[in-house]
Amino acid sequence: MQFELTKDFLSNVSQAIAEKDNLFIINNIIDLHPADIADVMDYVNLEEAQYIYQHLEEEKAADVLVEIDEDVREKFLESLSVKQIAESIENMDSDDATDLLQDLPEKKQEAVLSEIKDETQTSDITALLNYDEDSAGGIMDKEFIAANVNWTVQNALELLRRQVEDVDQVYTIYVTDDNSNLLGTLSLKKFLYASDSTLIKDIYRKDPIHVQALVPSEEVASVMEKYELVVVPVVNEVGTLIGRITIDDAMEVIKEEAEKDYQMASGISEKVESSDTVWVLSRARLPWLLIGLTGGIFGAYVIGGFEDKISEFPVMASFIPLILAMGGNVGVQSSAIIVQSLANNSLEIDTIAKKLIKEMLVAIVNGLICSFIALLFCLITEKDVRLAITIGISLISVFLYAGLFGTFIPLILNKYKIDPALATGPFITTTNDVIGLLLYFLIGWAIYF
Amino acid sequence: MQFELTKDFLSNVSQAIAEKDNLFIINNIIDLHPADIADVMDYVNLEEAQYIYQHLEEEKAADVLVEIDEDVREKFLESLSVKQIAESIENMDSDDATDLLQDLPEKKQEAVLSEIKDETQTSDITALLNYDEDSAGGIMDKEFIAANVNWTVQNALELLRRQVEDVDQVYTIYVTDDNSNLLGTLSLKKFLYASDSTLIKDIYRKDPIHVQALVPSEEVASVMEKYELVVVPVVNEVGTLIGRITIDDAMEVIKEEAEKDYQMASGISEKVESSDTVWVLSRARLPWLLIGLTGGIFGAYVIGGFEDKISEFPVMASFIPLILAMGGNVGVQSSAIIVQSLANNSLEIDTIAKKLIKEMLVAIVNGLICSFIALLFCLITEKDVRLAITIGISLISVFLYAGLFGTFIPLILNKYKIDPALATGPFITTTNDVIGLLLYFLIGWAIYF
Repeated sequence: MQFELTKDFLSNVSQAIAEKDNLFIINNIIDLHPADIADVMDYVNLEEAQYIYQHLEEEKAADVLVEIDEDVREKFLESLSVKQIAESIENMDSDDATDLLQDLPEKKQEAVLSEIKDETQTSDITALLNYDEDSAGGIMDKEFIAANVNWTVQNALELLRRQVEDVDQVYTIYVTDDNSNLLGTLSLKKFLYASDSTLIKDIYRKDPIHVQALVPSEEVASVMEKYELVVVPVVNEVGTLIGRITIDDAMEVIKEEAEKDYQMASGISEKVESSDTVWVLSRARLPWLLIGLTGGIFGAYVIGGFEDKISEFPVMASFIPLILAMGGNVGVQSSAIIVQSLANNSLEIDTIAKKLIKEMLVAIVNGLICSFIALLFCLITEKDVRLAITIGISLISVFLYAGLFGTFIPLILNKYKIDPALATGPFITTTNDVIGLLLYFLIGWAIYF
Repeated sequence: MQFELTKDFLSNVSQAIAEKDNLFIINNIIDLHPADIADVMDYVNLEEAQYIYQHLEEEKAADVLVEIDEDVREKFLESLSVKQIAESIENMDSDDATDLLQDLPEKKQEAVLSEIKDETQTSDITALLNYDEDSAGGIMDKEFIAANVNWTVQNALELLRRQVEDVDQVYTIYVTDDNSNLLGTLSLKKFLYASDSTLIKDIYRKDPIHVQALVPSEEVASVMEKYELVVVPVVNEVGTLIGRITIDDAMEVIKEEAEKDYQMASGISEKVESSDTVWVLSRARLPWLLIGLTGGIFGAYVIGGFEDKISEFPVMASFIPLILAMGGNVGVQSSAIIVQSLANNSLEIDTIAKKLIKEMLVAIVNGLICSFIALLFCLITEKDVRLAITIGISLISVFLYAGLFGTFIPLILNKYKIDPALATGPFITTTNDVIGLLLYFLIGWAIYF
């Protein structure tokens, strides 16, 4: 069906390049979809990638450059001349062009910008560079089509025929007033039904869903998702239409957000892939390990304080892992549910207090079940009533504490506009370890003595 | 800008309904976007939701029904008559209609199907019901526009004008042969440039990216993402065009997949939201807690085996949490990186052996750093060389073991087509707890005696 990248194909590519077999490249690569060519270039070495790149026609080369993996692209761009980059940028959508430009060192950025001959593109890029890359302005492009509200359908059709070459995909025609303020949209449906002399003002749809340039890109993604939009217009503070955001960019935002949350919950502090170097992987993982280490050391202090009792009742030590495991699991579960609800933008009908009460009830239900099993186990295997009671009460306490803590912390972080995902994973488990141990030994101490 | 649902608005809605203030509903609700009306209906009670629903015109009512939260919808549908549901379904896209129908009890399903008057819709739905809901066929709709390759642009334009009412969004016109086999697509660009008498065969684009009806929906989503498609045609085994999948459905697949992985990693076994009942939340969380409990009990056995030594050297107990925390963190990190790489469909250039070697190197780097810190800490606070050596060696061993285990298990699961996300979170931590403890006490035992 579609092209599938295999190891065999890659080794054929390398061999062909080694033998300067241009025919192989022409027959097997240059007609592929840019995303597929980019895939190939991601896996071959830099020299081979350059060899392939040289065979691509200008427009395709630009498309490929957009699609290459960011890590690979950065290195690849170093090997291209300012002129080559400028030519590619002229063939890109303004948002992709801006992204690529931002990958370059500042000096090269300026050089490339001054080399671009298409003035609209230069001014579009300059405008886009002003926006934060996590805002609507940072992910929009300038390739929209706008028709004046006083035009006829005939006028709009002519404009469309003229502009359509610049715009990869026409999703909607925007309708603006004389000051370029966004008034509405012209649906293809209405457009195809209308006669040439129909006035746009008579058939356009008013008050389209739109976003402000400064809102965070996540908000854009959730608006597009909620209203099932493939494109959304972007306006500035006074309502002037300044760009559009297409669904592929929103999808990327959603994916990155989900990946970030997942990595945070798993104790990984930078965006990494399994193909990254050992050094990058180690560095991304070390911070949370050090937090875990600190937690472990605090834990050692807590237990150290009860060393005499452990000598006397070493069986207390046996149940440390049980207490830690349950506290950790409960805390992670609670925080994950909260983080995900927050990410889905559910309306906060419930107050924090109400959420905590609900979490408490869940903790009681599951805590009772688990405590009862653990208590039975202790009674049967250890035949020690005091120990069984200690374990039972400790588990319930840990469930309550861990559940409430796991619910409370992300809610509080969110309230103060800090990413609640920070509170998941290792952070919750580490804190819960220390508090859980303290609870366990204090309860044990109270019961045994 | 857009409608924003607030608590105040909701209480106004409830009050208006209590007072049978139809004017409020008409002025403030019925002109909202269906997704917003659905939001309101998600939060009010069943009677109130019905009250609002009655005020909606037929087409909007159908759109709202599509958008309502699944849990709410199920209850809401119970309160609608077979006739009401059938009428709504006639106004839906075939994929939404099929989804809704699947929410009904079997008996009502049949009753509704036989009540639908639009025969095309009935046959479309019957066709769609045959597909697994996680396959391309299960998420496609039948509202595509196809033009015969032998037609002129004029013919296609007429068809488009006629059919466009049925199709919410026209993204692409598909080109088929006399047997309805998919040949290509007609881009809007070419279409607008061409004269009316141009033959479609002269301007269409051949070999479009397409998917087979039986491929998993995740594969569809990744194809659409990779090639930045807003719509993809679906064909059956012999190449007949049978449907199309739009980007909103692919986006939903991606989101659900990411949420599922996240919940799995957090030890939650069903899809839940913080607004679910205590009972649903407890049930979703219990399975992994029981696994953790079992792990804790095994841990108790392991430590129990060394009780004599703990009586003698109670300081050994103090470092149990440290060992557990590090093993847990390392295991979760490793598995998360693998799971995410697998989800992103990166080409498996590296063999499993190569991945394990890389993970081993990462474990050595971070293990050495953490062990060294822990060892120093032991030496300084406990002034016990044997203990320090025990902790140092144990940590390195745990890092190696946990890292390799966390890498290996998801890779193996994936190889046997089992969801690798199963191996993340509590499963990894629980296993690592037991093995980590065993390593720690065996190493301690070897060094102390």
